[in-house]
Amino acid sequence: MNTFKDFSAANILLIDEYISSFYDEKIHSSEFEFISQHYEIIKEYCCRKGKRIRPILFLLSALGYGLKHDKKKEFIKMAAALEIMHSFLLVQDDIIDNADVRRGLNALHIELAEKLNLKSKSKRAESMAFVLADVMFSNALEMIASSDICNRAKGRYLKIFSATYEKTAWGQVLDILNSGNISDNSSEIAKNISEMKTAYYTIFYPMLMGYSIVNKPNPQEEKVIKEFCIPLGVAFQLRDDLLGVFGNEFNTGKSSDSDLQESKLTLLIKNCLESLSFDKNKKREFENLFVLSNKSKTNIKKIKKIIIESGAYSATISQFKEDINLAKTNLNMLSISKQYKSILFEFICYIEDIESVGLLG
Amino acid sequence: MNTFKDFSAANILLIDEYISSFYDEKIHSSEFEFISQHYEIIKEYCCRKGKRIRPILFLLSALGYGLKHDKKKEFIKMAAALEIMHSFLLVQDDIIDNADVRRGLNALHIELAEKLNLKSKSKRAESMAFVLADVMFSNALEMIASSDICNRAKGRYLKIFSATYEKTAWGQVLDILNSGNISDNSSEIAKNISEMKTAYYTIFYPMLMGYSIVNKPNPQEEKVIKEFCIPLGVAFQLRDDLLGVFGNEFNTGKSSDSDLQESKLTLLIKNCLESLSFDKNKKREFENLFVLSNKSKTNIKKIKKIIIESGAYSATISQFKEDINLAKTNLNMLSISKQYKSILFEFICYIEDIESVGLLG
Repeated sequence: MNTFKDFSAANILLIDEYISSFYDEKIHSSEFEFISQHYEIIKEYCCRKGKRIRPILFLLSALGYGLKHDKKKEFIKMAAALEIMHSFLLVQDDIIDNADVRRGLNALHIELAEKLNLKSKSKRAESMAFVLADVMFSNALEMIASSDICNRAKGRYLKIFSATYEKTAWGQVLDILNSGNISDNSSEIAKNISEMKTAYYTIFYPMLMGYSIVNKPNPQEEKVIKEFCIPLGVAFQLRDDLLGVFGNEFNTGKSSDSDLQESKLTLLIKNCLESLSFDKNKKREFENLFVLSNKSKTNIKKIKKIIIESGAYSATISQFKEDINLAKTNLNMLSISKQYKSILFEFICYIEDIESVGLLG
Repeated sequence: MNTFKDFSAANILLIDEYISSFYDEKIHSSEFEFISQHYEIIKEYCCRKGKRIRPILFLLSALGYGLKHDKKKEFIKMAAALEIMHSFLLVQDDIIDNADVRRGLNALHIELAEKLNLKSKSKRAESMAFVLADVMFSNALEMIASSDICNRAKGRYLKIFSATYEKTAWGQVLDILNSGNISDNSSEIAKNISEMKTAYYTIFYPMLMGYSIVNKPNPQEEKVIKEFCIPLGVAFQLRDDLLGVFGNEFNTGKSSDSDLQESKLTLLIKNCLESLSFDKNKKREFENLFVLSNKSKTNIKKIKKIIIESGAYSATISQFKEDINLAKTNLNMLSISKQYKSILFEFICYIEDIESVGLLG
């Protein structure tokens, strides 16, 4: 098992099997019928096909930093907890962003509206989704609590788990505060949002958790983990920003207009604002289109055109490639075993390959 | 320190000091200005005067079951975590229930709308409040992770902490599913909601956590803890239901119409439906008034009148007294130290005394 693809496929299977059996147990042992019924909905949502990047990076890091293979079973529970925390955040994200589609299917609040015969986008459907997300979070904590690993290592994991949750929530706050408006420091803000909501959340913290679960704290190693993870995380976000506007809906599993419809202050938009800074009129035209709350198809097209013609599209591609290269260089600094270093290298290459998921270049 | 009042006052001081210093540290060490600003809001919200029943019961139980006084400091963090989880749930509760007032001040989503110049009750203000609640929950986990107690005991605590969160969320789901409508099994549902959202959450789980943090699992003792806590918890909910409709707003800190305005299926309403089961016309009149989404002052008065005249008010008072007496009897079964047993007895008496908080009897 030497390639990222193989490693990923084999472990996604283990993680998904655990999540699926966890929820089967919940469905069968519930005291009340309504709980079983809603656990069916939660199970379907959490078991949807996904990349499972956070749990996979966590396992990669733990194994690369010395976790023995025969102990892996209990660590799968800790990995699964990260995926369930992710499901919790996706539910909230979709409510906040008014997104209807998640992983090619209904967002949870839309699914609940259908299942419970509630008015779509009604407050009640959204409240239900928020509270089912709470159930998911409690499930993640239960997975952590039930994992039979060294209690001291579990303590270190829990510390980073709470930091992950906190940092991501602050990224969400910054995102909400700045959605739908543009100010002088929008560029700086877009950078901070993407670092908090993606670089730390998706790449750095899972890698750090994997390290910390098998090693005592070591500031030097944690520093190089960060220097490797942050550029990779920013690249991952740039990829997401590009696919969110120019991607193929079928492959990405979400609407390619939603980022623009919600006036998301992404790094791509940041680059566009910077590219237009010498053309006041064009910049004003872009800003006026961008902050509209209901954008017509024609306006969406106009926005995309400006992003390309301003040079922001190619600037974003360049920045993306730079960050990918920085991650490749910094990978060498990690004192992780050779076998897992090469799998991580392939992971970088997987992120790098945006053409194959249908970017309209 | 032998009375409940003294025990409670002394420990509320320690818990509040810890919470306050925890948030001061957050405010001063934040990387970004917007985080400090929002931590100020969170601190104000979490430090509002409250009864702190859950952390107090947790400490009472831990000390009564053998925790040494000199080790109490680290357990204060675990107690505080319960209070912060409670703040998290209150924020969500107020959004779901459209409640404007909490602990005599603005509900968090109302406070944020004012502070951020957002439209009151706008989706953005509610989203902000939901995400700040997430920050609070991450803070609770950080408090648990940072507490320097035996890791094995912490593991047992975490298991019950996640069960608490799960059970309460299911109570909330049942509550949302049944708010604003009345069905044949409304009585049964009202009982389940109050057990999940109050008896388990407020009384049983905090007591069980206190026990488990100093003792290995023991099904026999856990059983008697439950037999003591569930009637006490139901009494506590009955008290809340009575005060929620007939209480003095100044003393309870929340509007005495909000339960009725939100058509909350409380135990008081359950008793009213049961009392009216032989008077079909009156029952229909009550149900029609009760499910109205915007109730006039006159209609609120009519509802209150029916509750009293149907006998539901006095039936609820009787049920309340029965549960209080059952709790007093079952208290004797607990193998808790004599000193703390007498404090618990006074706690029951404190719950029993609804006249002094202004019930209009």
